[in-house]
Amino acid sequence: MNDPATVSLTTVRTLGERAKVASALLAQTSGEVRRAALRAMADALDAGSDHLVAINAKDVEAARGTLTNALVDRLTLTPSRLADMSGGLRTISEQPDPVGEVVEEWIRPNGLKIQKIRRPMGVVSVIYEARPNVTADVAGLCIMSGNAAILRGSSSALRTNLGITKILVEAAIGAGLPEHAIQLVDDTSREATVELMQLKGLVDLIVPRGGPALIASIEANATVPYLIDGDGNCHVYVDRSADPKMATAIVVNAKTSKPSVCNAAETLVVHSDLVEGWLPGALDALKQKGVEIRGDETVCRVWPAALPATEEDWGTEYLDLVMAVRVVEGIDEAIAHVNRWGTSNAEAIVTEDSQAARMFTAQVDSGTVFVNASTRFSDGGQFGYGAEIGISTQKLHARGPMGLRELTSSGYVVWGTGQVRT
Amino acid sequence: MNDPATVSLTTVRTLGERAKVASALLAQTSGEVRRAALRAMADALDAGSDHLVAINAKDVEAARGTLTNALVDRLTLTPSRLADMSGGLRTISEQPDPVGEVVEEWIRPNGLKIQKIRRPMGVVSVIYEARPNVTADVAGLCIMSGNAAILRGSSSALRTNLGITKILVEAAIGAGLPEHAIQLVDDTSREATVELMQLKGLVDLIVPRGGPALIASIEANATVPYLIDGDGNCHVYVDRSADPKMATAIVVNAKTSKPSVCNAAETLVVHSDLVEGWLPGALDALKQKGVEIRGDETVCRVWPAALPATEEDWGTEYLDLVMAVRVVEGIDEAIAHVNRWGTSNAEAIVTEDSQAARMFTAQVDSGTVFVNASTRFSDGGQFGYGAEIGISTQKLHARGPMGLRELTSSGYVVWGTGQVRT
Repeated sequence: MNDPATVSLTTVRTLGERAKVASALLAQTSGEVRRAALRAMADALDAGSDHLVAINAKDVEAARGTLTNALVDRLTLTPSRLADMSGGLRTISEQPDPVGEVVEEWIRPNGLKIQKIRRPMGVVSVIYEARPNVTADVAGLCIMSGNAAILRGSSSALRTNLGITKILVEAAIGAGLPEHAIQLVDDTSREATVELMQLKGLVDLIVPRGGPALIASIEANATVPYLIDGDGNCHVYVDRSADPKMATAIVVNAKTSKPSVCNAAETLVVHSDLVEGWLPGALDALKQKGVEIRGDETVCRVWPAALPATEEDWGTEYLDLVMAVRVVEGIDEAIAHVNRWGTSNAEAIVTEDSQAARMFTAQVDSGTVFVNASTRFSDGGQFGYGAEIGISTQKLHARGPMGLRELTSSGYVVWGTGQVRT
Repeated sequence: MNDPATVSLTTVRTLGERAKVASALLAQTSGEVRRAALRAMADALDAGSDHLVAINAKDVEAARGTLTNALVDRLTLTPSRLADMSGGLRTISEQPDPVGEVVEEWIRPNGLKIQKIRRPMGVVSVIYEARPNVTADVAGLCIMSGNAAILRGSSSALRTNLGITKILVEAAIGAGLPEHAIQLVDDTSREATVELMQLKGLVDLIVPRGGPALIASIEANATVPYLIDGDGNCHVYVDRSADPKMATAIVVNAKTSKPSVCNAAETLVVHSDLVEGWLPGALDALKQKGVEIRGDETVCRVWPAALPATEEDWGTEYLDLVMAVRVVEGIDEAIAHVNRWGTSNAEAIVTEDSQAARMFTAQVDSGTVFVNASTRFSDGGQFGYGAEIGISTQKLHARGPMGLRELTSSGYVVWGTGQVRT
């Protein structure tokens, strides 16, 4: 049994088996015990801050030269980022306990009382990339929702993630949670990851938070149910009735406040009535922030600094200071464009016309549709969830930012007094 | 293009493309229009009753000798069964409209109002077997929840399903619904079914209602999201505190009222305190109904007519007048048995002890957990849904009987006044 592949496969399955045992015990803990565990985990992170920054420095050192500067930045832990992580755990601990929540309840004519009740999923695994804050976010959300967590971070963050996990696990066990409620996969090989995706019967849900290669691997290999946290080709549609200053502020914020994230806007869709009046000034404002504009024919005519957009631009998530701009004749064409090219993450309309807002929110097929607000709010923290398990870009189970409730399933409990079926 | 395989593949994709167009139009219809369409569909079924019985007679004639008597019975339409189908459509039409329902709503400190809102899934396909009533049930649930339906029934029911679909489609279009909101796949080949499972981007959800071979095909081939309507290895646990008469009535009803269906009980789990007193009489009552008992050692000792059960019996869905019986020392062992062998469809506890009821309902991992009622109530009609799209035996998205709400996804709409993210 010295074949390394065999050893790693055994290990991942063992993690799954231990997590399944832990999940049955976790499902029986009270909300108060889980809340106290999260507070203890937050305190332990604060106490271990210097230690974790020191460990993280080794990962950062090793990553320089091999990862891009942006990825090295994501990997880097600072005392301030650690304080955000412990703050997130405390916010999660203050959310309503989803376990046992009665979602609906009714009584049938035969006297049966039917309750739809939230229960933990069981064992939840999240596969993620450089940012080590995800380790604490996912552990906290899983524990508070009564689920055992199997964390699989990137190899570049392994020392840091091991350090964070060790601190969280000790605090959780000290607070009375079962062993193996939080586990980190320390084998970051492709084989071990595929094995994790195939732990059917042990893992109840996998959330892949990563790029197209990870999503493709999940779609090709996973036998465990999964929720896709996919791309964000987000749109802002500026309607004819938009408040011009508000429209510019929202477009600039959605594009430039953090271009590298999935809720940043990639395409501006604008009503043709605004082409002469509002559009050139808005594009000037984007240019001032360093944004390159790729426009359709009309855009290039009224604002000659624009590069001509090709069809590929409508489908591209730039994650950079580039924005595609398209002019439409009306809201129907805007909705059609968004539904054709969007990736169901987040879209916004800027409008003062309530009927346009109703049409857009009813017909646009996306996780979150914003009216007069930036797409950048598509985020679990911004929704008040304390953190997020991911942003679902699919329809089944959940859409948009996912917090505690999205980590539960809703089963039925039916209370009778001896009813039989005739 | 005379290759039959090519022709059929093209056809299924065309159905998907038409359904996608119809779904966008359906999502914009009001609940009143959809309700009226369901009433018109019900009226049309009533008016076409004699015609459908006559068409069905040809399917039944062709099936005799090739299908089992039980399947021929399921295939057979009678005026009374047709009246149940139209009655189901009317009940569905009276349910609350799930489309646009605000599930949750809250306001953030920055003034953003976040709403979680139900929307149709889009295009829903159900693959089912002999019973033609599913054609009307699924069409009705899909339309009322704003989804386009692609129906794929069995080849043995093709004439009947074509007849039912024609009547439903004409009534729906007459009531103002878009074309192609209801479509039947008339190519029942394996190739066409696999193509249907792979219409990613066109079909939003597939529900396979069939045996292990269909489920295996879905798991191997589907690229479209699916919800498994799986086996029903259902349990009744009779606790030490159970009311003896109620316990016997529930066990006999759960096993014998309709043994061929997925919510029939297959295993009786009984507390050891009841072995001498209650158990022999209960097994006598089952025997009187023709049930063969397969028991563990204790059961065979106190009731010698029992055959010895093997481990295989705990895992078998008999769908017949056979019941496995196991004695346990306490509720923990009962829960462990159910969670080890159950298929997450429906389980029941008979008890007068509220703490035992709480433990069982909290720890048993199943779609529906009944307290003092028969497992046979795990059914959309019995839950008051008018019909069911299936019974989910998985955790993601929905568990147990699925009605209108389970045919929606919950996305976010966020209302702002110009908020940008700092």
